Amino acid sequence: MVQKFQTIDRKLLRKSRVLEFYEDTLKTPDGQLVKYDMMLHKGAAAVVPVLDDGRILMVRQYRHSVDRITLEIPAGSRDSREENFRVAALRELEEETGYRSEKLEHLITIITAIAYCDEKIEVYVARDLTPTKQHLDSDEFIDVEAFELEKLKTMIFDGEIQDSKTIASIMAYSWFTKSP
Amino acid sequence: MVQKFQTIDRKLLRKSRVLEFYEDTLKTPDGQLVKYDMMLHKGAAAVVPVLDDGRILMVRQYRHSVDRITLEIPAGSRDSREENFRVAALRELEEETGYRSEKLEHLITIITAIAYCDEKIEVYVARDLTPTKQHLDSDEFIDVEAFELEKLKTMIFDGEIQDSKTIASIMAYSWFTKSP
Repeated sequence: MVQKFQTIDRKLLRKSRVLEFYEDTLKTPDGQLVKYDMMLHKGAAAVVPVLDDGRILMVRQYRHSVDRITLEIPAGSRDSREENFRVAALRELEEETGYRSEKLEHLITIITAIAYCDEKIEVYVARDLTPTKQHLDSDEFIDVEAFELEKLKTMIFDGEIQDSKTIASIMAYSWFTKSP
Repeated sequence: MVQKFQTIDRKLLRKSRVLEFYEDTLKTPDGQLVKYDMMLHKGAAAVVPVLDDGRILMVRQYRHSVDRITLEIPAGSRDSREENFRVAALRELEEETGYRSEKLEHLITIITAIAYCDEKIEVYVARDLTPTKQHLDSDEFIDVEAFELEKLKTMIFDGEIQDSKTIASIMAYSWFTKSP
């Protein structure tokens, strides 16, 4: 029977804008002491925005981690650990795509990188979209494009879409739509 | 039209067992200089192991990031940035579940936490499984259990399974099996 480890000590190594990086000391169930590097994250919200015709709004942006332009569902970190996830989802949707939604339904909860970070993303499906205006941060550059669901699934299996939250969310959304 | 940022400078802050943590300085397309914390990762492999009766082998383990026992598909980091992903997948499958596979098919490619880490996971479907023996590291404690696909999907939508690679992989695998 698998048991929890015990946290014996925690040392802050670095505090970034959205991440805190720690070196923890853990005690295993059989009494060993092991060092473990991990990060705390404010949490984030992501949205599958569905237009009235069924197409899905996606964002194109530069991702430094992989040094390329990627295609993802709109998403962003919470302002703080206290911010409501739905509020963050609606804000990120409007900021990144320039659409407001009157109908937000919870889809799935994701822990992005469970091996070393506690980041949780709450994912919603947004409908009844009405155009407003994009509001990007000064260092954000984002293009918006609408795609058919079937096209997105093809791009996932072709490896053109690799972002974990986008794959998990699009495949989960697809399961409900049961399109042919 | 979205453009790439340029990396101006990179400073190593911390080298962990599987992660390197950097502070980068980037130049945006309109010429601003911005600081950006990011991590490099060796890459990993994950497996959806399918028994002859269709059930899927899952692993239960303690995850310090979320301080709880989780249910995930078997997965693990590559030994180095040079290791072949298929070799890593077969090794992690056998080490964590005690099963060897004669038939490994690529399913999807995932970037786990694209906002701050380059970790790539290659995910495979493993069939023709034969029992051998679990080989865990001294600080690894893992239980193995087989689940019906439909049960796993229920657990995803109920929030009992939250690991991003597991949700993406199980939903992607489900799309191919087209079960009712």
